[in-house]
Amino acid sequence: MERSLDRVFNPQSIAVIGASEVPGKAAERRTRSLIQGGYAGDIFLINPKRSEIFGRKAYPTITDIGKNVDLVMIVVAPKFVTSAVADSVKMGAKGIIVITAGLGETGEEGKKIEAEILNEAAKTGACIVGPNCSGMFNASSNINMLGIPTINKGSISILAQSGNVIDSLTHFARIKGGGFNKIINVGNAIGVQLHEYIDYLKDDPDTKAIMAYLEGIRGGNELVSVVRETVKKKPIIALKVGRSRAGMRAAASHTGSLAGDDIILDAAFRQAGIVRVSNADELYDMAHIFATCPIPRGNGLAILSEGGGDNSIAADNAEKFGMEVPILSRETQEKIKPFLLEGMPAHNPIDYGGTAEENPHMITECVKVCMQDDRVDGILITGFFGGFYDIISPHIAELEEQTSRELVDLVHEYKKPLIVNTSYARDPIKSLDILKEGGIPVIESSERAAQAMSALMHFAMKQQKIRTMTIADKESREHPAIKKLFDTVKNAGRANLLETESRELLQQYEISLPDAALAATTQDAVTVANRMGYPLAMKIVSPDIIHKSDAGGITLGLKGEEEIKTAFEEIVHNVEKITTRERIVGTLISPMAAPGQECIIGMIRDAQFGPVIMFGLGGIFVEVLKDVSFRVAPLADEDIDDMIQEIKGYKILTGIRGKKPKDIKAIKDILAKLSAIVIDNPEIKEVDLNPIIVHERGASIVDSRILID
Amino acid sequence: MERSLDRVFNPQSIAVIGASEVPGKAAERRTRSLIQGGYAGDIFLINPKRSEIFGRKAYPTITDIGKNVDLVMIVVAPKFVTSAVADSVKMGAKGIIVITAGLGETGEEGKKIEAEILNEAAKTGACIVGPNCSGMFNASSNINMLGIPTINKGSISILAQSGNVIDSLTHFARIKGGGFNKIINVGNAIGVQLHEYIDYLKDDPDTKAIMAYLEGIRGGNELVSVVRETVKKKPIIALKVGRSRAGMRAAASHTGSLAGDDIILDAAFRQAGIVRVSNADELYDMAHIFATCPIPRGNGLAILSEGGGDNSIAADNAEKFGMEVPILSRETQEKIKPFLLEGMPAHNPIDYGGTAEENPHMITECVKVCMQDDRVDGILITGFFGGFYDIISPHIAELEEQTSRELVDLVHEYKKPLIVNTSYARDPIKSLDILKEGGIPVIESSERAAQAMSALMHFAMKQQKIRTMTIADKESREHPAIKKLFDTVKNAGRANLLETESRELLQQYEISLPDAALAATTQDAVTVANRMGYPLAMKIVSPDIIHKSDAGGITLGLKGEEEIKTAFEEIVHNVEKITTRERIVGTLISPMAAPGQECIIGMIRDAQFGPVIMFGLGGIFVEVLKDVSFRVAPLADEDIDDMIQEIKGYKILTGIRGKKPKDIKAIKDILAKLSAIVIDNPEIKEVDLNPIIVHERGASIVDSRILID
Repeated sequence: MERSLDRVFNPQSIAVIGASEVPGKAAERRTRSLIQGGYAGDIFLINPKRSEIFGRKAYPTITDIGKNVDLVMIVVAPKFVTSAVADSVKMGAKGIIVITAGLGETGEEGKKIEAEILNEAAKTGACIVGPNCSGMFNASSNINMLGIPTINKGSISILAQSGNVIDSLTHFARIKGGGFNKIINVGNAIGVQLHEYIDYLKDDPDTKAIMAYLEGIRGGNELVSVVRETVKKKPIIALKVGRSRAGMRAAASHTGSLAGDDIILDAAFRQAGIVRVSNADELYDMAHIFATCPIPRGNGLAILSEGGGDNSIAADNAEKFGMEVPILSRETQEKIKPFLLEGMPAHNPIDYGGTAEENPHMITECVKVCMQDDRVDGILITGFFGGFYDIISPHIAELEEQTSRELVDLVHEYKKPLIVNTSYARDPIKSLDILKEGGIPVIESSERAAQAMSALMHFAMKQQKIRTMTIADKESREHPAIKKLFDTVKNAGRANLLETESRELLQQYEISLPDAALAATTQDAVTVANRMGYPLAMKIVSPDIIHKSDAGGITLGLKGEEEIKTAFEEIVHNVEKITTRERIVGTLISPMAAPGQECIIGMIRDAQFGPVIMFGLGGIFVEVLKDVSFRVAPLADEDIDDMIQEIKGYKILTGIRGKKPKDIKAIKDILAKLSAIVIDNPEIKEVDLNPIIVHERGASIVDSRILID
Repeated sequence: MERSLDRVFNPQSIAVIGASEVPGKAAERRTRSLIQGGYAGDIFLINPKRSEIFGRKAYPTITDIGKNVDLVMIVVAPKFVTSAVADSVKMGAKGIIVITAGLGETGEEGKKIEAEILNEAAKTGACIVGPNCSGMFNASSNINMLGIPTINKGSISILAQSGNVIDSLTHFARIKGGGFNKIINVGNAIGVQLHEYIDYLKDDPDTKAIMAYLEGIRGGNELVSVVRETVKKKPIIALKVGRSRAGMRAAASHTGSLAGDDIILDAAFRQAGIVRVSNADELYDMAHIFATCPIPRGNGLAILSEGGGDNSIAADNAEKFGMEVPILSRETQEKIKPFLLEGMPAHNPIDYGGTAEENPHMITECVKVCMQDDRVDGILITGFFGGFYDIISPHIAELEEQTSRELVDLVHEYKKPLIVNTSYARDPIKSLDILKEGGIPVIESSERAAQAMSALMHFAMKQQKIRTMTIADKESREHPAIKKLFDTVKNAGRANLLETESRELLQQYEISLPDAALAATTQDAVTVANRMGYPLAMKIVSPDIIHKSDAGGITLGLKGEEEIKTAFEEIVHNVEKITTRERIVGTLISPMAAPGQECIIGMIRDAQFGPVIMFGLGGIFVEVLKDVSFRVAPLADEDIDDMIQEIKGYKILTGIRGKKPKDIKAIKDILAKLSAIVIDNPEIKEVDLNPIIVHERGASIVDSRILID
């Protein structure tokens, strides 16, 4: 059965089971906001105890309506929810929004009811929204089931796991400007999942930017795919809480979400192109900017102000948020200089030095020239715009308004974002209203203004990358040889592959490995060693020994036959303390790796995101600095580049202090092949290639450990 | 001559040279704001072209007044400034505020005028404020010479290098509440220096918090001392721009300040206890909070809200800003639970779960119990306070107002800071006004609210430290032996000490050094080597060889007489490519250092802050990660602890993965003695102890390089 969210957002008719007119009640607020919202379809109010609500007929049950209903909102006590859902399904409901809280998030009893709800909905494929949610809003069809009296209309859509945060976001729109197209509280999301909502909004022509407030993530791997497709078309700005222990505590008692590892989530969000923020006001400001401004092409910022202090602050902010403040072209500078005081530089930032306070139109001239300069991708005006009348003289107000109109025209003509930062941003000033209505954000905080511009620029670059990148197939291919290998391991009752088996698996994917040979006896070892030449390393091979080094199962730098013999005997002797002789397969002998930079590549299966691949440098980088990067598999080439370049120690690979660069291509090759391995073989639970010694040419995987389910 | 700023801020009479009533002029705005400000003393307006200004008598020159004037503001063209100052001095002016711009910041001509001004002022010791400044404000004496019509009165004082930023700050007070006692734009600060203003405000009873906007710093070392004394009494919040290249460009064209190295400045600010911010709105918010809230005792935060989402956000913010969100005591939890919904946890954060929306008084009860809990040092209420009427029902407003009054009482009773975060913060709501007037900040942004609380808590801990720490004497002591050593070096026309000389100097301060002996010839070398035992290191000693390793002047791990001979010959041979045999003093031979962690300790003389000491781990920590810390000398024990613990690799010193801790006490000892060395010997320009191998017991200074002036 195909489920379509269209009937949730654009129903022909709506019923409210549990409708109320008792002041202060959740049901009353939602019934009222729905009636007052101007919805054009039929609204049926259901309440067995009333014959009339807000002057409208009330039905005892939904089955009494006598005709089918598209969308049902249920606001009844937990024990009545299942039958309400069952009745709704009977009446042909395509969408059912369950507001009722106190279900899955409170324990087993509630989880049972949730299972019943899903069971009923499955009969027709009806979409379940919630439960434990605050409702839905759609400006396009005048539906307001959130119980918030006034919601500004606009082009941002919200997906959220908290009703209070939706309240804040809608309040921010009222005080800061901007507004919403669709708002949905996903609640416990037992039916429709987060990625399904996103997938719907992706193709929604009325939604220009998507904002999400999240406490827990389920189906992260699917989410990454959907988000990647979505950000090709429009930005997603997300606030995910639970970074901290106390935050997880708070989120867990709120929705019962299992907050996953934030480091992996953060990497996954970055990989997918989500703009991540950390506070509700930031979430609003960012989404508002994305819904308002043109998307730039790069990260070159021009800064203009009537104050040197303001310029300095803005320039520092630009660097903090990863923007360039390029020296403007000579031509641009020559065009700007006539407007400035004698001797003032026009390099960027540009300081009007008081001239704009007498003639605001000069701002237009300067902005225009900057818009024309290829080095400039976005423009930030900082200082006092809007406040000239207050600080200088009231007669300036009209000139300022004219300038605002000119600036709006410039943005439309050149399609480069312009943001105005002024401490007067929230005062009722006409010149600022003209900007806001014309698509130029006016922001009070200098930091937020810079942060917003930076988000636009960095999103633009990421979007460009995602639009052109090739993402490997998520379908797994079968490898009979590997299947056989896994069968052997499983039949032996093992979960860990022997190193010989790990090597076999890696070689199936043409990952090049250092020479190595298994020696079952001392004599074998001597034969192998003499063939290979010295120096050599020797490692125990036994299903019972996972941490070879701790068990005394490794000896390095062996230099001759005698040392080989002694090493073999000693390793076997050490290991016999843990296992028996019969369980010792032998030792693996290989040449000592040439010097190089130690690296680590690994894979774990994350509960939320599935296969996640890790990369880092070895030694203190991992142990002390936790300098590692993660990406969700399958990895695109661009993901691999990002995860290598993202680590703090990256410079070590490119060569520092005259040292030659290491073979980064060899690392990329291993990462790409590991991605294929973990996609093809879902049985693999964990991979640990550690250490890998990366040379100037090639890389040696010195040890590999693979764990299967 | 003693200079007192008291006559600048509290003059008996004021003259304005260049007074004006021409609208839009800088002089007009300042003349007007001064007249309208309500100053009780005499105001004399000076303008040779007018007989009357704003209906008051205008004098042709200041000498025409016929009596002495305490404070003079000069707003005339650059070429008239010198004579205006000379006349003012003649008339007994104790303070002279030079508004005029276009002086030192524009070039040599302006610098000449500045020298003349200082020359005139020196005749009587008059204080020069500015030039290139926007004026002064003092609420205590009703003086407003800033040209800003309305300035809220309060207990924050501002020191700033930008007039526009002062405009923003005063506007923030108008829209956010709070206000100012003294405001001064220090301008080019040719006369009164920044640290003198701070020193004055330190003892000013009307100033509760000092905020500073800075573009360039002069006399940084003096500043650190004054700030340390000041923060024992009151906080200093500073915004210093020029972190970025573009920011330096902007600052330089604004005031001509030389923006120094931001890393050193940042360390110096932290050392001195300055609260550093990076934007003007943040500067205002922070100072406002410090002027409003009680100073807490620790960093334990209780978070309360009617929304789980808001709590999660606040908890994440708490961690981000270094606060603890402790699990409340069992007793506290038991007292809170009756107010919450059945089954809701009271551990912290506390989620009212809708109960406060019906009964706001329960907030008071919860806050009171938290105030009584020793684990709680500050409280953050987040969510909707002030908005209940809007979201829930208008009838709640009065109950909310009563709760506000109760909360104000609790803060006064328990003296723990309480901050309220709500998206309604800036709406005109009575319950919020009661909070604001009662000393409870109400902040719109959740991030800023957390940041503010964190600043209070971290300042409190720093203040406690500074109040009790012993700072070493800044007076230098003479060492005849070292003086003789320096004379020898200077007489030889050298700036670099030979390593033998560096060692002699370090030994004078009882810094323990590895054994070492100079060998002038191959035979010497063999004798020395055989006495010391092997393995040994050998290094060239020559005034011409500073980078010994690059010159082929170092050989390590020498294991016998033959190797010693060869090494000596080879080193001399290598070095003879750069210098002559006569300039080779010999080689320094010492035992190879035992293994340990490589560290670096150094000193440079910073143009702004004087002697600055650096500490870091060696190798990639310095080369790749720039993981070093700085402090201005003299170092207190607390400074030394901070600079060691501040580096990212600190854990390596305390022992990781079962390794034993390194001898941190030995590092402290070297840092403390180096501090004494650089204070006692101002001739020392640079010190480089690199590498130092820190062992489990003791540390070996393997190489030392000292440069003198």
